[in-house]
Amino acid sequence: MNVDLRPHVKTHKTIQGALIQTEGLKSPKIVVSTMAEAQFFADSGHFSDILYAVPISEEKLYQTWELSQKINFHIEIDCEAHLQMIRRFALRNKRAKFSVFLKLDTGYHRCGADPEDRNTLNFARRISQPVGDNKESQITLAGIYSHAGHSYKAHTKEQRQEIANNDAKLLTDFYNKLQEHRVSCPTVSIGSTPSCSAIPSQSAVTEIHPGNYLFYDRMQAEIGSCNISDCAVSVLGTIIGAYPSRNTIAVDIGSLALSKDVCEEDGFGLVVGHPKLKLFSLSQEIGLMKGETNGDLQVGSLIRVSPNHSCLAAACFPKYHVIENDHVVDEWIPCRGW
Amino acid sequence: MNVDLRPHVKTHKTIQGALIQTEGLKSPKIVVSTMAEAQFFADSGHFSDILYAVPISEEKLYQTWELSQKINFHIEIDCEAHLQMIRRFALRNKRAKFSVFLKLDTGYHRCGADPEDRNTLNFARRISQPVGDNKESQITLAGIYSHAGHSYKAHTKEQRQEIANNDAKLLTDFYNKLQEHRVSCPTVSIGSTPSCSAIPSQSAVTEIHPGNYLFYDRMQAEIGSCNISDCAVSVLGTIIGAYPSRNTIAVDIGSLALSKDVCEEDGFGLVVGHPKLKLFSLSQEIGLMKGETNGDLQVGSLIRVSPNHSCLAAACFPKYHVIENDHVVDEWIPCRGW
Repeated sequence: MNVDLRPHVKTHKTIQGALIQTEGLKSPKIVVSTMAEAQFFADSGHFSDILYAVPISEEKLYQTWELSQKINFHIEIDCEAHLQMIRRFALRNKRAKFSVFLKLDTGYHRCGADPEDRNTLNFARRISQPVGDNKESQITLAGIYSHAGHSYKAHTKEQRQEIANNDAKLLTDFYNKLQEHRVSCPTVSIGSTPSCSAIPSQSAVTEIHPGNYLFYDRMQAEIGSCNISDCAVSVLGTIIGAYPSRNTIAVDIGSLALSKDVCEEDGFGLVVGHPKLKLFSLSQEIGLMKGETNGDLQVGSLIRVSPNHSCLAAACFPKYHVIENDHVVDEWIPCRGW
Repeated sequence: MNVDLRPHVKTHKTIQGALIQTEGLKSPKIVVSTMAEAQFFADSGHFSDILYAVPISEEKLYQTWELSQKINFHIEIDCEAHLQMIRRFALRNKRAKFSVFLKLDTGYHRCGADPEDRNTLNFARRISQPVGDNKESQITLAGIYSHAGHSYKAHTKEQRQEIANNDAKLLTDFYNKLQEHRVSCPTVSIGSTPSCSAIPSQSAVTEIHPGNYLFYDRMQAEIGSCNISDCAVSVLGTIIGAYPSRNTIAVDIGSLALSKDVCEEDGFGLVVGHPKLKLFSLSQEIGLMKGETNGDLQVGSLIRVSPNHSCLAAACFPKYHVIENDHVVDEWIPCRGW
């Protein structure tokens, strides 16, 4: 699609996963969702360009400065308060430099400034203004960024295409206005896993940043952005109880091993190989299933549950067991915490 | 109430919390929900009697045996498959001994055998039978146990009392039948946080095992088993964005910091001090709030969110900051994983 790939790594949070996502890229760029991830991936030495894609807050600025001296590290802002907080820091620390992405809202309505609001353009124009009497600009506008999270509610290919088109169009229009005002903006970054296969060729988009696609999950399969056979993670558990009089089976996979993300009416995860068995209840360490089993399941049998939301389920564990042909061939250790 | 307290420690998973719960007890007894907790609390040296209250599975029997040599360690069973699995292990390991609680279902319908089913009594009578040609019994029935988890759906004191009465009655009846058949059963253990204040005096109950009460949470306050001011844990976050045109405020508390347990229509947690501000959306690292704030909240302001379900929120973190008069006076490190 003639755009760069800047994969989001928050789904798996592992060096190995990010290396697969960036394999063959000359200067691997990634997106992270916590400062702990930023540090973890920067320290690995493999990723020289990292964007922390959550609006920045003051207590993270010192670590931001440190990371900026080591790699191309970028933060995101979307309002005057963010800019003023960075300018105050820059005034106190004259050698500090910040590379900033302006976060724009293209319909998800989580974070981001409105790209069609005239104030947003004026705001963007002021980002690089020198601080105090420093002639050199300490803050650089590195790009504009949107996350089309509303694509997770799109259930058809046409809807996803429309969201991708709109995402690209809003950022292209904004980019063109920046050009008119001679504001430098090297990067135009859009994306989400559901919408990332659809970038109109006429856009100013320079990179896309999907993330979940490395694992996919049942939610992505439900909305049609992958098949259920594409889902790469599952939680292994043991049947710990069978209660024929109540038609239920208990498994030692609870909400601490799967997270509690519900996928409409279909339960808390898909029991692999037993599509008619519904995981209908989750308490802390125990899951309850009912329905038809596909073959024999007894107390002691192992089952795998494919999570509704792989990002949240993966974050429950201190490591991944990497499986090839039913054998554990590797272990991946993810970054955890903040 | 003339019963022993065997607190459940799965809510906080800390030595310090369990010491508070058992302070002043001669031989502190606790309940745990994972084998990792069993090991963690046994290794601390403070708890000489630990019950792992999830139905046992085969791969845990060796660790069970090891723990049994160190402390009074008990496991739970509720069906023939569990008993046979232990008997097979005992046959292979003639010195192994197991102390077993029979788990009974008194209406929660998660795990547990039916106490009114004749087969359950027959099953209980066979638990202590010698294995192979070993004259000494390797398996001991240490007690009967129920968890009245359905009390979480009781919204009045009368309903909670009724559940507690029924819980105690079913176990008392079962205990009496065991007595008739001269089956030794030293412990009769019931309880849940909502129902634990109500034990009828005529019962055979010897101990109660509530757990959540150390922290309580919004869900417990909602059903009336505590007041909201009794809730002891909250998650501290920073306002990272304010979007007046959309009437939303973003905070850096997402589903990985709070879990995704919904409390009816009231959002994903209670914003402390701002009761009219609703945390209506949670993605991985970001929460969105809307509604009236009580005083000024700006980008950079700190807020505390009181979780709907303290057990799940607490499990998101590698440590607790213990607060007294707004100062951090201690750090508690919980057990994590399995």
